[in-house]
Amino acid sequence: MSDSNHQNRMQRKKEVVDERISRATEERGVLILLKGNGKGKSSSALGTLARSLGHGQKGAVIQFIKGRRETGEYLFFRDHPRLDWHIMGQGFTWETQDRERDIQAAETAWEIAKGLLEDPAYNIIVLDEMSYMFKYGYLDPVPVVEALKRRPAHQNVIITGRTMAQPLQEIADTISTVQDERHAFRGGVKAQAGIEY
Amino acid sequence: MSDSNHQNRMQRKKEVVDERISRATEERGVLILLKGNGKGKSSSALGTLARSLGHGQKGAVIQFIKGRRETGEYLFFRDHPRLDWHIMGQGFTWETQDRERDIQAAETAWEIAKGLLEDPAYNIIVLDEMSYMFKYGYLDPVPVVEALKRRPAHQNVIITGRTMAQPLQEIADTISTVQDERHAFRGGVKAQAGIEY
Repeated sequence: MSDSNHQNRMQRKKEVVDERISRATEERGVLILLKGNGKGKSSSALGTLARSLGHGQKGAVIQFIKGRRETGEYLFFRDHPRLDWHIMGQGFTWETQDRERDIQAAETAWEIAKGLLEDPAYNIIVLDEMSYMFKYGYLDPVPVVEALKRRPAHQNVIITGRTMAQPLQEIADTISTVQDERHAFRGGVKAQAGIEY
Repeated sequence: MSDSNHQNRMQRKKEVVDERISRATEERGVLILLKGNGKGKSSSALGTLARSLGHGQKGAVIQFIKGRRETGEYLFFRDHPRLDWHIMGQGFTWETQDRERDIQAAETAWEIAKGLLEDPAYNIIVLDEMSYMFKYGYLDPVPVVEALKRRPAHQNVIITGRTMAQPLQEIADTISTVQDERHAFRGGVKAQAGIEY
């Protein structure tokens, strides 16, 4: 391709992109759902959190399943002055094997989340692996949807988890599905610090 | 479901999971590709980077397209003592409209990346939006694949971008495809600090 052809094509592309940008004018917080069976949902939420903190915003993370305090993400983020980090989980359901305890943990986590969703001081809230709470019937999605609808207008919320409850999908602004096309674990590589936890 | 049924099901699930974990014994760095048209690829790479830094590891980021220094991610990560951050891009091709300058920037970025891929001090390297370099023909994937194959055995590498060059996919350990199911931008919401940049 000649340089001038390249320039002409890119100029046309720029016009299309600029036109789209000019149509997106609404300024408000968004609800982002990260679902699917692929690696990178919680990581993506944490990367967006870092971006938000970089702009001086205030954030919170609630981990609904993970119960460990030795994860790299916790070690990295825990001392940040504008971030609250709540480890509410007890591990995966097949680790706890205790339905009553799982439900109790889910309800306690949701109480904290509800408080955050009413607090305009928070710019971004990550509800990590919350979707499993609906899948296992530990939480009812209806009051969660109501709290999300009532939240402060500027507040961004990210919810992660493999399968996402339908009522949440109905009110989401952005939905990304992370598909597992290949995973090192199936290739025999052990989970490692810095990648999986 | 009764509590004892739940416990039995979860015990069986735990056995399946434990068996899978026992088969994954290899310890080495992995090549992760994050592709697809959905939101969350670069964010995911940055979240994994945070996790890695949390474990005391050393990292580097090379941004092949982004040229701005006011992004939340740069503001957040730039002062980290165990992280190098290289902003090598000049913006999207339709912004620069200058093929020669784009190619020059790509080659300079690749020279830096090559040096990192030879340096065992780095545990994790993020090559952000590198895939566009192959798509536009700015870089040849063959020497990139060779450098990736030769890298230190413990080194993790994450490459992001919409479409991924086939030779990279052939040697990758993990591939996640992020699919755009819905995006706030198309719903009329303006790109905002802390979410898009």
